[in-house]
Parts: sequence; C-alpha cells; structure tokens
Amino acid sequence: MTVRGEVAHIGHVELLTPRFDESLWFFEELLGMEIEARAGDSAYLRGFGDYERYCLKLTASDTSGLGHLALRASSEDALQRRVAELARSGLGDGWHDGDVGHGRAYRFHDPDGRPFELYYETERYAPPPRLRPPMANQHQRRVGRGVGVRRLEHANFVSPDVRACRVHLEQRLGYRSWEIIKLDEETEWGAWLSATVQGHEIIYIKESLQVPSHPPRLHHLAFWVDTREEVLRAADLFQDAGIFIEAGPAKHTPIHSFYLYVYEPGGNRIEVTSGGYLVFDPDPEATTLWDMDTYRSSRAWGKAFPPSFDTYATPPVPGS
Amino acid sequence: MTVRGEVAHIGHVELLTPRFDESLWFFEELLGMEIEARAGDSAYLRGFGDYERYCLKLTASDTSGLGHLALRASSEDALQRRVAELARSGLGDGWHDGDVGHGRAYRFHDPDGRPFELYYETERYAPPPRLRPPMANQHQRRVGRGVGVRRLEHANFVSPDVRACRVHLEQRLGYRSWEIIKLDEETEWGAWLSATVQGHEIIYIKESLQVPSHPPRLHHLAFWVDTREEVLRAADLFQDAGIFIEAGPAKHTPIHSFYLYVYEPGGNRIEVTSGGYLVFDPDPEATTLWDMDTYRSSRAWGKAFPPSFDTYATPPVPGS
Amino acid sequence: MTVRGEVAHIGHVELLTPRFDESLWFFEELLGMEIEARAGDSAYLRGFGDYERYCLKLTASDTSGLGHLALRASSEDALQRRVAELARSGLGDGWHDGDVGHGRAYRFHDPDGRPFELYYETERYAPPPRLRPPMANQHQRRVGRGVGVRRLEHANFVSPDVRACRVHLEQRLGYRSWEIIKLDEETEWGAWLSATVQGHEIIYIKESLQVPSHPPRLHHLAFWVDTREEVLRAADLFQDAGIFIEAGPAKHTPIHSFYLYVYEPGGNRIEVTSGGYLVFDPDPEATTLWDMDTYRSSRAWGKAFPPSFDTYATPPVPGS
Amino acid sequence: MTVRGEVAHIGHVELLTPRFDESLWFFEELLGMEIEARAGDSAYLRGFGDYERYCLKLTASDTSGLGHLALRASSEDALQRRVAELARSGLGDGWHDGDVGHGRAYRFHDPDGRPFELYYETERYAPPPRLRPPMANQHQRRVGRGVGVRRLEHANFVSPDVRACRVHLEQRLGYRSWEIIKLDEETEWGAWLSATVQGHEIIYIKESLQVPSHPPRLHHLAFWVDTREEVLRAADLFQDAGIFIEAGPAKHTPIHSFYLYVYEPGGNRIEVTSGGYLVFDPDPEATTLWDMDTYRSSRAWGKAFPPSFDTYATPPVPGS
Repeated sequence: MTVRGEVAHIGHVELLTPRFDESLWFFEELLGMEIEARAGDSAYLRGFGDYERYCLKLTASDTSGLGHLALRASSEDALQRRVAELARSGLGDGWHDGDVGHGRAYRFHDPDGRPFELYYETERYAPPPRLRPPMANQHQRRVGRGVGVRRLEHANFVSPDVRACRVHLEQRLGYRSWEIIKLDEETEWGAWLSATVQGHEIIYIKESLQVPSHPPRLHHLAFWVDTREEVLRAADLFQDAGIFIEAGPAKHTPIHSFYLYVYEPGGNRIEVTSGGYLVFDPDPEATTLWDMDTYRSSRAWGKAFPPSFDTYATPPVPGS
Repeated sequence: MTVRGEVAHIGHVELLTPRFDESLWFFEELLGMEIEARAGDSAYLRGFGDYERYCLKLTASDTSGLGHLALRASSEDALQRRVAELARSGLGDGWHDGDVGHGRAYRFHDPDGRPFELYYETERYAPPPRLRPPMANQHQRRVGRGVGVRRLEHANFVSPDVRACRVHLEQRLGYRSWEIIKLDEETEWGAWLSATVQGHEIIYIKESLQVPSHPPRLHHLAFWVDTREEVLRAADLFQDAGIFIEAGPAKHTPIHSFYLYVYEPGGNRIEVTSGGYLVFDPDPEATTLWDMDTYRSSRAWGKAFPPSFDTYATPPVPGS
Repeated sequence: MTVRGEVAHIGHVELLTPRFDESLWFFEELLGMEIEARAGDSAYLRGFGDYERYCLKLTASDTSGLGHLALRASSEDALQRRVAELARSGLGDGWHDGDVGHGRAYRFHDPDGRPFELYYETERYAPPPRLRPPMANQHQRRVGRGVGVRRLEHANFVSPDVRACRVHLEQRLGYRSWEIIKLDEETEWGAWLSATVQGHEIIYIKESLQVPSHPPRLHHLAFWVDTREEVLRAADLFQDAGIFIEAGPAKHTPIHSFYLYVYEPGGNRIEVTSGGYLVFDPDPEATTLWDMDTYRSSRAWGKAFPPSFDTYATPPVPGS
Repeated sequence: MTVRGEVAHIGHVELLTPRFDESLWFFEELLGMEIEARAGDSAYLRGFGDYERYCLKLTASDTSGLGHLALRASSEDALQRRVAELARSGLGDGWHDGDVGHGRAYRFHDPDGRPFELYYETERYAPPPRLRPPMANQHQRRVGRGVGVRRLEHANFVSPDVRACRVHLEQRLGYRSWEIIKLDEETEWGAWLSATVQGHEIIYIKESLQVPSHPPRLHHLAFWVDTREEVLRAADLFQDAGIFIEAGPAKHTPIHSFYLYVYEPGGNRIEVTSGGYLVFDPDPEATTLWDMDTYRSSRAWGKAFPPSFDTYATPPVPGS
C-alpha cells in the first residue's frame, strides 16, 4: 500500500531557549500566540487556527535549537504501520506516554539523529470564555495582539546529508518532495517536503559546518499568516519592537512563499510566512529539480540573503 | 483500504454557453486565462498555475450550465479501483477515449444525474515561447491581463438531495466534508467537500426549485487568485467592464474564503476567490455541523446575499 | 487673498459617550489607540501617526454624539484672519484658553449650530520610553494592539441644510468640495469637503429627521489605516470581539475609499477607512456633481447600505 | 504673501529614450498606461487617474534622461506671480506656446540647469468610448493591463548641490521639505519636497559623479499604485517579462513609501510605489532632519540598496 496519507501534519515543535522569559514574551506578545498550558520548564503556545491545543512547546534550556518535532498520524492504524516501519529501519527509539494535549507517542530520529515523535490520540482545543469565537467553524477568536499567527507552518533543518533525510521522510513517512536543489548527481543542497498539497511542511538544507554539530541544528520555524500584507505589518511591528530582522519581506524562489526572518530572543530564527503554491499533481514529475546554476540565475525578486542565512543555525556553534 | 487520497483534484470543468464569443472574451480578457487549444465547438482555457494544459473547457451550446466535471485520479491503480466501485454503484456510464490533453476517462454521474469523469493519464503543459516562465518551478509566465486567475478552485452545484450527493462523493471517491449545514435531522442545505486539505473543491447546496430541472444545475465555478487584494482589484475591473456583480467582495461564513460573484456573458455565475482555511485534522470531528439557526445568526461580516443567490443557477428555468 | 490653505487639518474631535469605560476600551483595545492624557471627565487618545498629542477627546456624558470639532490653522496669521471672518459672519462664539495639548482656541459654530474650534498653538507629541520609535521620522512606535489606526481621517455630520454648511466651510475656512450630490437645483444631499488634496476631511449628508434634533447630530468619525487589508483585518477583530458591524468592508462611491462601519459601545458610529483618491486639480471643475438618479444607478461595487445608515446618527432621537 | 499653494502639482514629465519603441511597449503594456496622443518624436501617455490628458511625454532621443518637468500652477494669478519671481531670480528662460494638452508655459531651470516648465491652462481628459468609466467621479476606466498605474507620483533628480535646488523650490515655488538628510552642516545628501500634504513630489539626492554631467541627471520617475499588493504584483509581472529589477519591493526609510525599482528599456530607472505618510503639520518643525549616521543606523526593514542605486542615473556617463 501507499505510504502517502499516513502522516496528517506537524502537530507541534518543541523549541529550546536559553532566555525563556524573553522568548515567551516574543511568542505571546509579538507573534500574538496564546499560552494554553505550562508544565515543568515548558510553556505550550497556540496560533488562533490550531484545532489541537498548541503547536509550540517552548522549553527553558541551556541552549537554543530543536527539542523535538511531533507529527500526527492520520489514524491509529496509520500510526501502527508507521511505527512498525520505523522500528524496522533502526531509527525507532520507543514509545513514551505522551505530553500535554496528546496521547502516547513513538520516538524516532531522522538520519541526522534529530528527535521526532509520531502520535495519533490528541485533545481538541476547548477555548476559555475570553477566547470563544463567534462562529462554529472557528477554533478561537482573534484578539488582535501582535502579528497574530494562525499556526506553525513548517520547520527547516540544516543537515549534513539532505538526501538521506529526504528519502527517509519520503519512504517511511509518506512525504513528497516538491522541490529539490542538487549540488551534483549525488549531493542535494535542499529539499522541500510535504505530507499534503502544501508546498512545504518540512525542509532540509545543507549544513554549512564542516564538522556538523551534535545536536543537529535547526535553521528556522515558520509561522503562518493569511496574507502578504500581514507579513509586511509584522516587519513594522518587529522593527518598532527592536527585534533583529535578518531578511525579507520578500519572495522565496522555492515554493514562491513570502517570507520575513527574525531572531527571537533565545537566538532561534523565526519566519513569518504566507502564500506559496499548492501542488495537486500526484505524479513524481511534479517535483522541480534545480541544479545550483539554474537556481542561482533565476531567483525570485528580492535580494540575495545575507551570509548569516547560510551559516547561522541553532544551537550556534562556537567559532562558526 | 481507505478511499481518501484516490482522487487527486479537479482536472477541469466543461462549461456550456449560449454566447460563446462573449464568454470566451470574458475568460480570456477579463479573467486573463490563456486559450490553450480549440476543437469542435470548444475552447480550452488555462490559469497561469495549471500544470495540466487547461482547467476550463468552454463549449458553445443552446443553453448554459455544466457540461461535465472531470476529476484526476491519483494513480492508474486508484483509477481502476474507483471505476470498479462506481460501476458497482450503478452510477457508472462507461469509458470514453479522452479529450484534448488527457487520456481515456470513465464517465459516471452523481445521484442528481450530473455528468462526471475520472481519468489519470494527462499531458503536462508545455508553454509556447511567449509564455515561458523565468523560473523552473513555474508552469507559465504571468502576462498581467485582467484578473489573472491561477486555477479553477471549486465547483458549486445545486441539488435536490445534498446529502445523497455528499455521501456519494465521500464513500465512492474519498472526499471529506469540512462543513455541513443541516435543515433538519434528515435534510442537508449545503456540504463543502474536499479531496485535500483545502476547505472546498466541490460544494452542493440545496436546489431552490420545487421540481428540479433536468439537467441538474450549476450554482457557480470559482477561480483562484492568491490574495484578497486581487479579489478587490477584480471587482474594479468587472465594474469598469460593465460586468454584473451579484455579491461581494466579502467573506464567506463556510470556509472563510473571500468571494466575488459575477455572471459571465453566457449567464453562468463565476466566483473569484482567495483565502479560506485549510483542514489538517484527519478525524471526522473536523467537520463543522451547522443547523440553520446557528448558521444564520453567526454569519461572517459582509451583507446577506441578494435573493438571486439562492434561486439563480444555470441553466436558468423559465418562470423560476 | 485666497482662503485656501488657511486651515491645515482637523486637530481633534471631542466625542461624547454615555458609556465611558466601554467606549474607552473600544478605542484603546480595539482601535489600538494610546491614552495620552486624562483630565476631568475626558480621556485624550492618539493614533500612532499623530504629530500632535491626540486626535480624539473622549468625554463622559449623558448622551452620545459630537462634543466639538477642532481645526488647526496653518499659522498664527491665518488664525487671526479666519477669526475675523468668523466674527463678521455672526457664527463666532469667542475665545477660550485652550485644552490639553493646544493653546487658546476660537469657538464658532456651523449653520446647524454644531460646535467648532480653531487654534494654532499646539504641543508636538513626545513619546514615553515604551512608545519611542526607532526612526527619526516616526512619531510613535506601533505596538500591534487591535486595529492600530494611524489617525483620525474625517468627520461626517448629518445636516438639515447641507448646502449652507458646505458654503460656510468653503467661503470662511477655505475648504474645497470634491463631490456634491444634489437632490434638486436648490437642495444638496451630501458634500465631501477637504482642506488638502485628500478626498474628504469633513462630510455633510442630509439629516433624515423631519424636525432636526438639537444638538445637531454626528453620522460618524473615520479613523485611517494604511491598507485595505487592515480594514479587512479590522472586520475580523470586530466580529470576534462582538462589536456590531453595520456595513462593509466595501468601496464607497464618493471618493472611492474603502470602508467598515461599526458602533462603539457608546452608540457612536465609527468608520475604519483606507484608500480613496487624491485631488490635485486646483480648478472648480474638479468637483464631481451628482444628481441622485445618476448616483444611485452607478454605485461602486458592494451592497446598498442598510436602512440604519440613512437614519441612525448620534445622539439618537427617541422614536426616530 | 505666502508662496505655499501657488504650485498645484506635477503636470507631466518628458522622458527621453534612445529605444523609443521598446520604451513605449514598457509604459503601455507593462505599466498599463494609455497612449493619449502622438506628435513629432513623442508619445503622450496617461495613468487611469489623470484628470489632465497625460502625465508622461515619451520622446525619442539619442540618449536617456529628463526632457523637462512641467508643473501646473494653482491659478492664472499664481502663474503670473511665480513667473515674475522666476524672472527676477535669473533662472527664467521665457514663455513658449504650450504643447499637446496644455496652454502657454514658462520655461525655467533649477540651479543645476535642469529644464522645468510652469503652466496653468490645461485640457481636461475626455475618454474615448472604450475608456469611458461607469462612475462620474472616475476619469477613465481601468482596463486591467499590466501594472495599471494611477498617475505619476514623483521625480527624483541627482544634483551636485542638493541644498541649492531645495531652497530654490521652497522659496520660489512654495514647496516644503518633509525630510532632509545632511552630510554636514553645509551639505545635504537628499531632500524630499512636496507642494501638498504628500510626502514627496520632487526629490533631490546627491550626484555621485565628481564632475557632474551636462545635462543634469535623472535618478528615477515614480508611478503610483494604490496598494502595496499591487507593487508586489508588479514585481511578478516585471520578473516574468524579463525586466531587470534593481531593488525592492521594500520600504523606504524616508517617507516610508513602498518601492520597486526597475530599468525601462531606454535605460531610465522607474519606480512603482505606494503608501508613505502624509504631512499635515504646517510648521517648519515638521521637517525631519537626518544626519548620515542616524540615517544609516535606523533604516527601515528591507535590504541595503545595491551600489548601482547610488551611482546609476540617466543619461549614463561613460566610465562612471
């Protein structure tokens, strides 16, 4: 049977921060997320469009970067099939009892060693009175604070072996690659993967370090707003709040989405994004294969990224 | 096995028009579509984002309304499985050899008798020199003419039995309903169905006629633009071109998409649309169930629709 | 000498509310204004783009409607010339010592008896640390709360004699009318006036009451946002906050601005607006003269207004 | 008497091009302007919002750059007063009989020797049937071709003596400077001037050449669209049409307008712009004075401009 469709979507990401209070301020006050729960060293935050309780678990740590990425399977049966496959692959790490808002989850890692989880049982969000929406097809009312992100859209990881990570997601979890940039016949510089018609949900791009760090690094998390105008508005809000804007707003060459990159106070790169194309074509030819020359000579409008965009990832590595 | 995922997307719609030349002018000059082919009494038109050759087959006729709706299966195997199921259902009408741009197709009808087709083999679009795009992940360059629609987004049909049509699409073709409006325990007023995470791809709403017409009628076809601003721009272009604007721009209650309704010269209602939410939740509870009272008392902003919106469909019925 | 140019702009409006706390919540939390000062029964609020300290004086009262409209003269000499003219006209009411943020002001009234003031001396806004902007050409940082209006844009009054009020503003204060709707040769239904190239700064439309009330009534105050997208965003915020939306978002026929009308908790109609054309033509022919038939038959897209739009004004009149 | 208000607005700019046919294609097909007249070596083009017949006179030449800039006085008397003042200044060059669409005009030059004209008598645009608009307050219908600019917004000149040019416009023609960037106490790097509440209508920035060229050079002409979204749309259209994009879309530090810079086929830099603040304050303190350090350290978001932005102007100078 086909693997496509077995994973429904990213459930949430755990993000580590060495400056917990400032990071929490950033996500609550500037991105406009709601704190849905707090437990241990973590706060759980949601966008106004999340049907689950949260999409971001923010955890105090001595460093920055990824805690783990949690995927929701599309059914209990799909979960069992994927776990069996992951166990066979040698990348499985075993079950744990779950966390705030979701049931038991299977831990595994990608070829870089990056922690993932897969779960099915979840809690649907029940808003408190102040956040109850007027329409039955809304999960939460908007409160008009800060950027007002709808949801987590994608995670971008830097990897010493983009190809291995890409093939892993495709073969074991049913992701499709809509764009791949190749350095040469063997080596890939980037891969844009999705479990749905969306252009990207997980991205791997080449790690710039000669000796990749452990833990494997995070390039950025991207949060969705519905319009490019909201990305432009976010740029004004970030500038006025004194947040460092690394790049954008401008248009990405892959997927054509509209981007804005900032660093949250914990040092993690955060994207506010909108737009981009959907891919309905079920065929393998739907994948755009770029070689670096073509990619570099046919960029979307907007400037080249600053050098930091190719080298900075979290956790930062001393001397890199 | 699950039916979900067997149909990839709407391939194209055949639209009938009693005023072919004027309708062609509307789609080419005002919506900004490209004429990709002409054959017999038909012209085949595309949006700039179509990976197939076209999404609209416009056919001269003595009346308006739907010719047929063609769905693309996600694989040859999926096509065979769906055809077997359709044949078993008694709704199958047999194979034909295909049309411009796609291979053989299986004809069937929905419970109303509305003509559908299912196919898999297709031709990928190859732009002529004047339409060649600068980036490898574009199908066609934009030419900046008129509204500039990206693609066909959904078709909306009026039906004497919304529920029967909805269940048919769900059970035999793997569609999911993201929103259902119920008149009472047995009767449905509307259903918003999708084969992907999109909020809607096919919609059925209640036929207002006491004695439903044959052929079954079309409420509207919707074409996609990437931003609400383009919908607003379209309203200016339509007004300045003397095209009747029936409703909008405003926000839909179901799916939250942004709409604008006009009548093309052949009398068919055409929507220009953008936005709306995506549904990632794989569970049945993801469906919003509205009763009419709740639906009417919690509408999205924007005025009530004019009475014509509830009664006019194509082909028009004398005296209705 | 020409009168044009003697009045620079609307300085502020005093708005009366019988529900002061709720109204203050509306302007601070929903419109996103800052409270710059409080004195007596009033709060003084500003948009992020105001160079003066405030544009709205909100005053607790036993009713709703206009307190007064204050205009800033373009110089001390211009102030003296206008005061002399107003005194001659019999509409002058004398000097007072000024208010929070501005120096002495001359009180007068329009032909309806509506209170106006004219002043020149003013205080330029000095932001507290939390609102200090990063760029020298900003008056205040944006904080991302609610709609985030830039400034007060216009005031719209209902009048039993639109023509008399219009001629008064033109001849004594140098306003220009960019659009006039005429009921017949003698009677005007509406006039859109401006002291600058903006399409409108003060509007008079026909009072619907047979026996006009005293005090003369306010149709609405309009606050500016820079984009139509922010008007659409405001509609979502208002709906989610349970604020009554009377009309829009849609496009006005006069001036072509994009509108959204709500009632603040004190009952006053508030518009959030953007866009509209500028008028650079210095000639009298620049005025568009509409008769009612032409006006009604060539409306901009968007629905007709609800009946309340023609009859409701503040203070409300029992039985009207 | 005050000089403010004597000049109403820029009437039109004459732009020289060594590639007339390609430039005409650019302005007609890509910017979406209409050819209103042709005479001699020139075509006269208009935006859909122009009340006069045109805002751009495109003239075949052996080089690129400015032909002349024509200003419209606010009345016949104002014209006479300004001409008397210009004659006194020694910058006057005498009357000529007028051109397509306007009456006699007085020629003068700025301190750099750049040709200007001042006129009052003009022809109001009378659209041909295909361009007749549906509403009485529109000058022309929109046709939906290309970018669809509304009007010419500003001209930006490079000057060896910004200060002298600025003072000339202020003292003799009544312009106000809303922003000035100073290199030191004596020398100005840039000045943003306006005859209205708009942020800029004429801009001077420092010529980068050591030995300034004759004729004095043009940095760019800017054409207005109503929304930032239309600027973003323009970027897609330019890229797809193979037009070189030099910078943007992004936000300007001065005036906060949203910009996009391209080179038209004749080599002249063209901006598509929207937004920016209005200045209502009549006082001299309304001018923002920047020193270079502050200016450079507090830029609006968006990347630094490419080096060409500081050095390229038209006509180009060999070896520069």
